[in-house]
Amino acid sequence: MLSVKGFAAQNETNPLSPYSFERKEPGEHDVLIDILYCGVCHSDIHQVRNEWGGSIYPMVPGHEIVGKISKIGSNVTGFKVGDLAGVGCFVDSCRTCENCKNDLEQYCEKGMVGTYNGRYADGTPTYGGYSGQIAVDEKYTLHISEKLPLEKVAPLLCAGITTYSPLREWKVGKGHKVGILGLGGLGHMAVKLAASMGAEVTMLSTSPSKREDATRLGAHKFALTSDVEGMKEYMNYFDFIIDTVSAPHDINFYLQLLHTDGTLILLGVPPESPKLEIFNLIMKRRRVAGSLIGGIKETQEMLDYCAEHNITSDVEVIPIQDINTAYERMLKGDVRYRFVIDMASL
Amino acid sequence: MLSVKGFAAQNETNPLSPYSFERKEPGEHDVLIDILYCGVCHSDIHQVRNEWGGSIYPMVPGHEIVGKISKIGSNVTGFKVGDLAGVGCFVDSCRTCENCKNDLEQYCEKGMVGTYNGRYADGTPTYGGYSGQIAVDEKYTLHISEKLPLEKVAPLLCAGITTYSPLREWKVGKGHKVGILGLGGLGHMAVKLAASMGAEVTMLSTSPSKREDATRLGAHKFALTSDVEGMKEYMNYFDFIIDTVSAPHDINFYLQLLHTDGTLILLGVPPESPKLEIFNLIMKRRRVAGSLIGGIKETQEMLDYCAEHNITSDVEVIPIQDINTAYERMLKGDVRYRFVIDMASL
Repeated sequence: MLSVKGFAAQNETNPLSPYSFERKEPGEHDVLIDILYCGVCHSDIHQVRNEWGGSIYPMVPGHEIVGKISKIGSNVTGFKVGDLAGVGCFVDSCRTCENCKNDLEQYCEKGMVGTYNGRYADGTPTYGGYSGQIAVDEKYTLHISEKLPLEKVAPLLCAGITTYSPLREWKVGKGHKVGILGLGGLGHMAVKLAASMGAEVTMLSTSPSKREDATRLGAHKFALTSDVEGMKEYMNYFDFIIDTVSAPHDINFYLQLLHTDGTLILLGVPPESPKLEIFNLIMKRRRVAGSLIGGIKETQEMLDYCAEHNITSDVEVIPIQDINTAYERMLKGDVRYRFVIDMASL
Repeated sequence: MLSVKGFAAQNETNPLSPYSFERKEPGEHDVLIDILYCGVCHSDIHQVRNEWGGSIYPMVPGHEIVGKISKIGSNVTGFKVGDLAGVGCFVDSCRTCENCKNDLEQYCEKGMVGTYNGRYADGTPTYGGYSGQIAVDEKYTLHISEKLPLEKVAPLLCAGITTYSPLREWKVGKGHKVGILGLGGLGHMAVKLAASMGAEVTMLSTSPSKREDATRLGAHKFALTSDVEGMKEYMNYFDFIIDTVSAPHDINFYLQLLHTDGTLILLGVPPESPKLEIFNLIMKRRRVAGSLIGGIKETQEMLDYCAEHNITSDVEVIPIQDINTAYERMLKGDVRYRFVIDMASL
């Protein structure tokens, strides 16, 4: 086994603290990554605090990992020592189901193996990126361009692909009017990516203070959703709304902003299931859909696209010792737009 | 004005009764149709009883109309006296909005003019097909084939197009697994149409008594939804589920029967908005959509398709004097599968 340092939650109530642990050695198909940066996703907090149930402790969170390869297994062909590499939300899947075969490992019929808070096929728990090193099968490892600042690339592994994948699946581009709901880790990537694809992007927000930032990120319009009069021009307006909000909110209001045949794409799961006013769907043939991160092939495509178009996340780099404070700030929405841990601080 | 006999609801509580009234004379673009048959749609009951609010009385219901043209306006070019003709759920729309221009009059941005319980542009109320004659603009009138029994064609004007349109919009055909939920007026047409398009059709029902009929109508499989063990084979199974049920039911159960990227298409509006478990969408990129009847062009396409493929509705023909009893039987689900009024009885 490989001895590794990291930060872990020992249970659902205590703060994260330094933790030395053993994780799997790189096998013949694995690369060993020295982790340089790891993004902090809101789902880290949910899982650390067992808000989704079934959490495995001790838990080393983190699934927005970038680093440098320090060792490769004997059968690794796609990477070499010294290469930059990334790991996203999962490190394995069944590899045999229809979804895995179709490069949709995130929808693996047997369930993908989460980068942390999951279990490998042999039952041993997975540990994530709030740590010094990780060994991952090269099939589940991404190539990272040398062109972009690495700390700003880390959040692409989750926030980036989660927004890129639905934009591609629904072929968003020139001529489309896209509304982005929620300006956080996901939302700010959705604005950048949708704008880069040629769509007209409107930030939908309850807070006028977001206007300036939304514009800076690439939004063409800003719709203050609390302005009843001003919202009239956005009724039946959008081809797509990308809903990144995990807090309770009325999806029916946003359905009414969709044009005929428009689609509301849900990326977050609010704590309570919202009521769906079916009338809003039927009267304009509108659609509601969900989307979950992306497959390995598409994640690589997204990383290459971002390198080509110079798209990265807006981040605030922190030492790992600040992780608990960072969680508290995230819960208050006080981050623009992603905390990224500098693993040199470990 | 044109003096016409019919049956009307005078208010939301009394039974329907004979009613003589005046309706618009055929204008220069109108055809005058002597009504031969009119189907009885469940929405007739909702509107007669003001269950959707805003009902206009006296109300002459009926929007599944077939008959013969007895007179044409001076500028009518597409029909001649003696032609068979049909009228569906609407008799006009704004004609200028994007949806009207795109042959999607049912989603007219200013609202289509319902065949009954609506108002023409000049504010006068519309009266439906439980009557002897109706004058309709030829643009909103359908050609009816001489090939098929007319009483069985009438329900195609609503139940037929309501199920045909989403099957076409979502390009349902060979290789698709389609579940049909609800075996009533809409459901039995959905089974026939989906099977005719080459899909594998499964009837989803709570009642084993529906099995035989579903098979006769063309369903390839029958899934008894109350059979917990038996339903396991249908988890993640369907590409599409056509949900024709207006009674309260748990859409989340049916979402779980959808394959990755599968779509639940809602045609009915239950009295209470169901809760949507977003997790069910996100974990398999599933979709929920609504669909409303169809445009005039597509309705004509559907009628021509049905004539070509010898597809009609299963009906029980009644004299108009039995309409109130028919409503009671419909509320008990006691009709296979559509009542159609023989207007000769008027």
